[in-house]
Formats: sequence, structure tokens, C-alpha cells
Amino acid sequence: MPPESAGPRRLAPGLETDLLVTAHALADAARPVALGPFRAPDLVADNKLCDGFDPVTEADRKTERAMRAVLAERRPEDGVVGEEYGHTAGTSGLTWVLDPIDGTRAFIAGAPTWGVLIAVADASGPLFGIIDQPHIGERFEGGFGRARLTGPHEATDLGTRPPRPLGEAILLSTFPEIGTPEEARAFARVDTAVRLTRYGLDCYGYGLVAAGQADLVIECGLAPYDIAAPLAVIEAAGGIVTDWTGGPAHGGGRILAAANSEIHAEALALLRAGRRG
Amino acid sequence: MPPESAGPRRLAPGLETDLLVTAHALADAARPVALGPFRAPDLVADNKLCDGFDPVTEADRKTERAMRAVLAERRPEDGVVGEEYGHTAGTSGLTWVLDPIDGTRAFIAGAPTWGVLIAVADASGPLFGIIDQPHIGERFEGGFGRARLTGPHEATDLGTRPPRPLGEAILLSTFPEIGTPEEARAFARVDTAVRLTRYGLDCYGYGLVAAGQADLVIECGLAPYDIAAPLAVIEAAGGIVTDWTGGPAHGGGRILAAANSEIHAEALALLRAGRRG
Repeated sequence: MPPESAGPRRLAPGLETDLLVTAHALADAARPVALGPFRAPDLVADNKLCDGFDPVTEADRKTERAMRAVLAERRPEDGVVGEEYGHTAGTSGLTWVLDPIDGTRAFIAGAPTWGVLIAVADASGPLFGIIDQPHIGERFEGGFGRARLTGPHEATDLGTRPPRPLGEAILLSTFPEIGTPEEARAFARVDTAVRLTRYGLDCYGYGLVAAGQADLVIECGLAPYDIAAPLAVIEAAGGIVTDWTGGPAHGGGRILAAANSEIHAEALALLRAGRRG
Repeated sequence: MPPESAGPRRLAPGLETDLLVTAHALADAARPVALGPFRAPDLVADNKLCDGFDPVTEADRKTERAMRAVLAERRPEDGVVGEEYGHTAGTSGLTWVLDPIDGTRAFIAGAPTWGVLIAVADASGPLFGIIDQPHIGERFEGGFGRARLTGPHEATDLGTRPPRPLGEAILLSTFPEIGTPEEARAFARVDTAVRLTRYGLDCYGYGLVAAGQADLVIECGLAPYDIAAPLAVIEAAGGIVTDWTGGPAHGGGRILAAANSEIHAEALALLRAGRRG
């Protein structure tokens, strides 16, 4: 069954409630820890990868530890996958997927587009997710029949945009130097077809698609913990998230997040236009 | 006298206080008007320019009218220059320079990097400026001996970064398709020399330089009302804003905003490296 026709996956009500409360407890625990060093004068970024610029701060590690402490207390039977501390096996069949600070480049530049990503998944993928932006105090959540935005001015239901032509659409991505040359050409085919492309949004861009503000996010090179929460939020809000072949996205890699199936199909056709056979 | 060695320009204390209070009254009046249509489902963007995509919303016009009403009440003797309603002459020698919504592309994409720009200038340029981000509730202000950030978590003095090598610096700009091919090549020389370039920040990027978070903003094609407030804020915080020749920036055009004179000189040399003669 293609992702766009899959209904929301539900668990027993008591379990859903416990997972919801736990997810918000994780986000609440993460906020002050992640915010502490944000814009601090002594913030130091390491280079995690030798072959590229990938700053990781102590804030990442502290924030993940704060969330793992909540899980150890509240849901010790669940597995955990986190960006900083890897995989901890569980016994419940449920796994928490954590990216303590998604968008560390935004973080070290002081820009409020980084976020704390929290998802709970089973073997089929994410069930519920939160994208939390601690500086703004904005939280996008989706799954278990909910799709909500709470922020400094509003608490509203999330809902993706209705279809409009690609030529009127807004495309979001994190930076223009996207992926390999082949990936960059595929991205450029969509970039030139849309009305407006905005960069620099990190995980916040997925929140904007869920909130009906933008039509598409296209990225590549994502890890599973980068996409689990955005996937849950966007699908709960009525959108679609796949890889660039139209297949499941929760493994990461090349991501196409869309507000609806019509614009997803249009963008997917352009991303695939350069493929042979 | 080069801009970097000019001290803060001051007026009589009573006049400074009146201008400060007026500037904040303008920002307070603008906030709800600009926020009303932000992320509203029925936000419609016009195309202002036939030869390019420059969305302008009714929100721009309403926000400028709200600010002009405050000025008509409080400072009728001052001139006004606004993006939407042009120039209204005054008799005091002071002119308010208003960009009701700087970053309309961010605005229509739901991104919190647009801002309300307010400056008061005399014939020599801006004396005091405010960059206000209504969604976050964040206000950068500078001039008359003040340089302050008030926001959801803090009220702190602004101060630009101390010097660091260009290879460690963070460069901000609004979008990668910067200017003419010659301007793009000049920008690329700095882009390839810095550690990190972030796009999509609009006027918020100037606030981040004033707050010590980033080292440089480089843009071109700016109008005077785009740069007046950022110039005042950054210079009050210890930074430098010039055009790409090192000359005065308050007329707009090609802008180089820097955290300090050392990195300003390094970036300026790269921007000018392609010039003949």
C-alpha cells in the first residue's frame, strides 16, 4: 500500500496516551538543556566528520542525555535510537528516535530554525512525532489522530496545503549545496519549476509544510533520526513523505516531503526525470 | 572620516528619549498588524515587479499605515520614507525610514525571519534603528548609546563578535541567487573563504551579527529602507556596515555588514578582488 493511502496507525488508547505524555515530557526536558548554550558566547563547535563541516556541540549530547533519562524512568522497556549515543535495544517493540539538536549549523549561527526531534516508532516506521523549537517556544506534533501546533501566539490544528500548481508552490530546503552532482541536478529541476525556494530552514521547514505554509521540502543525505519526527508530523497533518523513488522515507536518505499527493507526484516526476530506463 | 571610526552620533537627551519612545511605539503598533495575516490561510501575495518575483501583501501596506498614524500623532514635523507609501517631507531635519515587512518571501513561506524595520535618520544617515520580529517577539535596537535585544528569553546588551579568521567565520545572506553574475562571483569569493554560509535570514541576519552570533551579512540590490535600521543596530553593537567599496551604506545597494573592522577588511578585499585598475 503506498504511503499516501495508509491511514493513521493507532495503538491501544492507554498506550497512546502514555506515549503522548512521554513525548511531551521529553520535549519539555530537552528545551532548557538545548537553550542553555544557544547564543552563549562560549559555544564551541567540534568538527564531527573529517570530510566536511558538521559541528556538534556539547549541547547535543547533554540534550540527548536529558531525554534518555526521562525514557529510562518512564519507558525503560522501549528501545532508543539517538544521534549522539546510538541504539539502545528495547523489549516492547517500540523505539524512540531522537535528534537532540537537528540543525546544528543554524544553532551555531544563532538562527531559530533548529529543533529537537522526537519520534516513537514501531517496525513499520514512526507513529508519533514532535518538532520542537525551544527559542521560539513552538511545538509541531503529529500522530495518534492528532496534528497540533502550539506556539507563542496560537494553539491550532496542523493541516497541509491543498493542491496548487508547482509553478505557484513554495519549496524549502536547508542549503543550496545539496548532495551529489546528480542529486543537485534533480533538485534543480524542481527548484526551477516552483515559484519560490527558501533555504536555511532545517527541521523547521517540515513544520511549515505541516502547518500549510509551504508545499515541499526536498533534502538528501538524511539519517533516520532526521526524518522520523517530521514524517510523523507531516503525515498526521495530511501530507506525504517518501524518498525520491516514492518509497518509504523513515530510513532517511533522499527525502521528498509534500503537502498533498498531487504536488508530491509532480515533484517526484521531476526528481526522477534524469533516471535511465 | 571612514564609517568605522565614526563614534555614535547623539542628539539632545530629551529629543533622543522622544525618538526612542516613538520608535518603540511604532514597533508596538506594527506587531499585531503584521502578525494578523502571518500564516493566515487566505494570505495572498501580489507580484509587485513584472520582471521578478516580489510578493507584497496587504499586510505590508496596513503595517506601514499603522506606523504612519503613530508618527502623524507623535512626530508630525518629521519626514517619513516607507517602502509602500514613499516619501513624506518633514521640517525637523529628521526622517523615519520604514520597511513594514522586510522579507516578504519569508513571510509568505511562514518563516520567522522577516521583520519590521524602523529607523530615524538625519542627512548623514540613520541615528537609531529597530529590527522587530513579531512572531518570535524579538526586538533588536541600536543607537543613541543603546544596543539591546529583548526577546522571549532574554533582555541583553547586543555586542558583535571579536575578530576571528575568515576561515572560521559565519556568513549570512538571504538567497544564493545574489545579484548580477559579477556580484555573484564577488559573493562566491567570500562564500568559499568562510567556514559556513547560511541563507534565508533576511533582516534577522543583521540582528544575529549585532548579537555576536555571525560575522558577516553580504547582500545586494537593497533599498535604503532595507538597510537603515540594520545599519544603526549593527554599528551600535560595535560592527561596521558599508557598501562593497567600503563607502556609506545607508543609500542601499550592495551591502557588507561585519562584526568588526578586521573581518570587514578581509571580506571587502575579496569582494573587490575582481575589480579592474
